[in-house]
Amino acid sequence: MKNEKLYDLIIIGAGAAGLTASIYASRYKVRHLVLGKVSGGLTLEAHKVENYPGYKSISGMELMQKFQEHAKSLGAKIEQDEIVNIERKNKDFGITTSQDKKYQTKTLILALGTKRRKLNIPGEKELLGKGVSYCAVCDAIFYKDKIVAVIGGSNAAAMSALVLVEHAKQVYIIYRREKLRAEPVMVDKVETNPKIEIIYSTNVLEAKGKNKLEEIVLDREYKGSKKLKLDGIFVEIGSTPAISLTRKLGVEVDQENCIKVDTYQATNVPGVFAAGDITSGLAKLRQIVTAAAEGAVAATSVYEYLKTK
Amino acid sequence: MKNEKLYDLIIIGAGAAGLTASIYASRYKVRHLVLGKVSGGLTLEAHKVENYPGYKSISGMELMQKFQEHAKSLGAKIEQDEIVNIERKNKDFGITTSQDKKYQTKTLILALGTKRRKLNIPGEKELLGKGVSYCAVCDAIFYKDKIVAVIGGSNAAAMSALVLVEHAKQVYIIYRREKLRAEPVMVDKVETNPKIEIIYSTNVLEAKGKNKLEEIVLDREYKGSKKLKLDGIFVEIGSTPAISLTRKLGVEVDQENCIKVDTYQATNVPGVFAAGDITSGLAKLRQIVTAAAEGAVAATSVYEYLKTK
Repeated sequence: MKNEKLYDLIIIGAGAAGLTASIYASRYKVRHLVLGKVSGGLTLEAHKVENYPGYKSISGMELMQKFQEHAKSLGAKIEQDEIVNIERKNKDFGITTSQDKKYQTKTLILALGTKRRKLNIPGEKELLGKGVSYCAVCDAIFYKDKIVAVIGGSNAAAMSALVLVEHAKQVYIIYRREKLRAEPVMVDKVETNPKIEIIYSTNVLEAKGKNKLEEIVLDREYKGSKKLKLDGIFVEIGSTPAISLTRKLGVEVDQENCIKVDTYQATNVPGVFAAGDITSGLAKLRQIVTAAAEGAVAATSVYEYLKTK
Repeated sequence: MKNEKLYDLIIIGAGAAGLTASIYASRYKVRHLVLGKVSGGLTLEAHKVENYPGYKSISGMELMQKFQEHAKSLGAKIEQDEIVNIERKNKDFGITTSQDKKYQTKTLILALGTKRRKLNIPGEKELLGKGVSYCAVCDAIFYKDKIVAVIGGSNAAAMSALVLVEHAKQVYIIYRREKLRAEPVMVDKVETNPKIEIIYSTNVLEAKGKNKLEEIVLDREYKGSKKLKLDGIFVEIGSTPAISLTRKLGVEVDQENCIKVDTYQATNVPGVFAAGDITSGLAKLRQIVTAAAEGAVAATSVYEYLKTK
């Protein structure tokens, strides 16, 4: 414990919220460390970002590279490591990583984002990476001239379908409701694409295949059959806040498991702030620009908190 | 009245908040108009923006051009005109501009920003444009090899001083308190600049000069005199929300005259939303990224509001 370094702030998560928190923390000269499993967060999975003001169209990966360069240019230390434990240590907080590194910090900004929601159907786990995917941007390229389906009706689902048509020969969107809930601009794009077909009011019951996905089972008939032959499914049914590590801290969450924050991005635990998709902040809009704004506010609150200590 | 066009949404103000609201409104296919006196808002006055995530360093003008191009690429109609009246018209809202154009709209996003606070001292009004300025970025170039002073101690004041040293031969910062309240990074920069001198705990009582500013009168001696000879003063003592036009709507404000909004950027008046520096939102941090985030949330709320109508 004597060799642990005591930081003023550790930011957990290196997505849009965490990196912006770092940019602001550097400007406030708050000595800090950014710890994240993957630098870039969920935005990395975005094929195209067209709603971050100032960039008409940019890939999620490129935008997050810019955030990262921005943070680094101001002196940020970003470590890629998985955190296995966060706990209170007297007045401070202790963090342990999967490489058994230990850190201590006076304050925390939790910016861990969300985890993908699963279908929880037979075959989903077994065929993961063999036809079952949670990231069209990452895996679309493996489905050249194949038939695939996106499960879900959100913006992310519509975006995934648009990414997939660039490679696959046929893309289904299978959605349990009667109407997509994506932005109208996105709905237009998928509805007018001749390679995309939308199957409404339908759930997927099972993913089947020997060594790779061969077909899925639907809960109602589509063109005379409950079975649909395809090569890949992309699950896009939302995500849940990544709060498993933060429970020990006693941080309050709402009924959707989002960390409760006030307008200063403060949680109920003194010294612990949160920003981005893991929080209840900003009308739960979950955009890059809202995550960034929350990161800026959280870093400002940390600066104020440390000043008054 | 019959010739007035009825919009779904009119966004008043074309700064970071208003333009982002437009970007999001376009993506939601909400038929809207942006009305603003100057496109770009307060950000235009920023010599350098180094805290908008994704751009390490960019002039305020260039960044706002990017916002504007982004909004226009999605089909935004932006009209440069001054609004002289906003009022309720039955269920809708009516707007009159200085060119006597009239518009009607179902919803409003108020993104009018703030107005500069004045010193209210003798000579300030008379010498405006003749040595008294509220915008270092706009006017610094006219003070080549001159002596100038910035009045104030905020980030904006520090930034103005840094802009001015690039032209002037000597820059004073005159501040009523004992310590600048700018970000530490900014404080360092002005303190270490040999051409900048900070006069603490001092107020300016008067601006004097015949046809142009010649000297100012301080409320305590500096180097043996209450008079300080200089060619220009730049007033940077903050700003107040530009709410004069919005009073008629019955929109509630807080004790600092900021429009009160909830987490959805909704005001107390149905159909009226607000975003950016004019609001009480996001811990009053007043950053480009927070204004943009609020614009995104406000447009989303308008979209939801119109859907349920």
